[in-house]
Amino acid sequence: MAASSLHCFQLVKFPSGSRPFFPAGSYGGCRIKNKSCHLVFASAKKTDQCLFTDSKTLLDSVKWDEKGLAVAIAQNVDTGDILMQGFINRDALATTISSRKATFYSRSRSTLWTKGETSSNFINILDIFIDCDRDSIIYLGKPDGPTCHTGAETCYYTSVFDQLNDQQLQQVEENKLARTTLYSLESTIAQRKAEVAAPRDGKSSWTKRLLVEHNLLCSKIREEADELCRTLEENEDNSRTASEMGDVLYHAMVLLAVKDVKIEDVLEVLRRRFSRSGIEEKRSRKAQG
Amino acid sequence: MAASSLHCFQLVKFPSGSRPFFPAGSYGGCRIKNKSCHLVFASAKKTDQCLFTDSKTLLDSVKWDEKGLAVAIAQNVDTGDILMQGFINRDALATTISSRKATFYSRSRSTLWTKGETSSNFINILDIFIDCDRDSIIYLGKPDGPTCHTGAETCYYTSVFDQLNDQQLQQVEENKLARTTLYSLESTIAQRKAEVAAPRDGKSSWTKRLLVEHNLLCSKIREEADELCRTLEENEDNSRTASEMGDVLYHAMVLLAVKDVKIEDVLEVLRRRFSRSGIEEKRSRKAQG
Repeated sequence: MAASSLHCFQLVKFPSGSRPFFPAGSYGGCRIKNKSCHLVFASAKKTDQCLFTDSKTLLDSVKWDEKGLAVAIAQNVDTGDILMQGFINRDALATTISSRKATFYSRSRSTLWTKGETSSNFINILDIFIDCDRDSIIYLGKPDGPTCHTGAETCYYTSVFDQLNDQQLQQVEENKLARTTLYSLESTIAQRKAEVAAPRDGKSSWTKRLLVEHNLLCSKIREEADELCRTLEENEDNSRTASEMGDVLYHAMVLLAVKDVKIEDVLEVLRRRFSRSGIEEKRSRKAQG
Repeated sequence: MAASSLHCFQLVKFPSGSRPFFPAGSYGGCRIKNKSCHLVFASAKKTDQCLFTDSKTLLDSVKWDEKGLAVAIAQNVDTGDILMQGFINRDALATTISSRKATFYSRSRSTLWTKGETSSNFINILDIFIDCDRDSIIYLGKPDGPTCHTGAETCYYTSVFDQLNDQQLQQVEENKLARTTLYSLESTIAQRKAEVAAPRDGKSSWTKRLLVEHNLLCSKIREEADELCRTLEENEDNSRTASEMGDVLYHAMVLLAVKDVKIEDVLEVLRRRFSRSGIEEKRSRKAQG
């Protein structure tokens, strides 16, 4: 956090040989505004962000601690779930960059280890981010399966406040993943669906009703989509738009639950489309067709 | 990651005095299935999760390293953005639990520091999670403003692959936050909106068209909502549901961009509703009204 905010200028020459780390296509000559070149002059305007076109320079730029380590956090690219956190050394980062599988350094065994090498649940890396201090890394990736050795989706399933707050004691016995708003909502809806299937708990709820009455659910989705549109058409207040979009999302997510579709699946669809400009492409196809 | 998978049984007696850390309402007698008691017998079935009802026991349970530290990752509860990562000691965690403001231990200054104490951009804690190894913590919270000292929303704005990949060199000069799928999409749409406002780049796109032609946008939102419903009504394949939901989300997000509403605002609305069972409450009010 408390990094220097020095402006950074760096002249980097492309080395012709030493490119051991990078997969095909991720390394090559540079291109600035359609001009090929072999020298890059980079100026980081607002921050201490420098431009490193050389792997060695990049690895050198990480502020490794006195043991040669930095923190690495693996995050699910679609859901934002923090999957696990480990430590990395220079080789672990270089291996992750080249293999695109999240790789760490085991402090207890003093070896590199790739998440998934025994379980096959690799974390497939889409991007890597370094923080402003250059001593903390995000591995942004897509896990092949549960990340935790316990079989949990992530390693963070123990809530401190649940453990300390008697009001939530009944939940403590069940693992509760660290989930952000969208996935907490998804999880609540899934819980209601389970209650509908095994109706021990007679408590009625709007969500349960929607889960069962599909005509009502669909008419609500159409109605809420219409109300969202009207906030634009009738120039309503922004807060109304946020509220109506909340309604659209909630009702649509109940439909996803009925159909056993995860919001993660939806986001994966969107990611794949946008990574190849798919929606644009689809629309232009439709327009032509 | 490589934690023991011992089953854990623990008999905890509530201490009557020593509750220095916890805010009013977060600590008290325990309740299991409507029976008050002062003893908790907890069994963690699948994992090594134990039940700690005593703050000291909880703080003792963290696997502090040889310097008395553990890793803490601050995450935005609505967007899932990893805001920053720091280290904590026992006092930092205790302070965070009691103050509900993300607090860390500065290794360079050997003092506690609360994020926001100088900038007023506190991270307001909603929950705290400990990982399976009990040496890594998530501070799940809502930031009051940008987290990074540079003014960036998060400390992670430097992409390794951008730095290494010449294809993306033009983007390197601009900060690119580590963003998950939904927020990358939001950011792409915002970029198109900026291009519409300053049309240097003549390249046409579906998104740009929707941003300008509001009748078209609204008719698409209604159409996609209808198509989503039909995947349920006509019992279509799950993959169709995911795809149609992707269309609903994308088009609705273009409307949000037109109205200058962030998806984070929408999620905050949903979080507030669900934390007080608001949607259920709203619906029951509507039904009665």
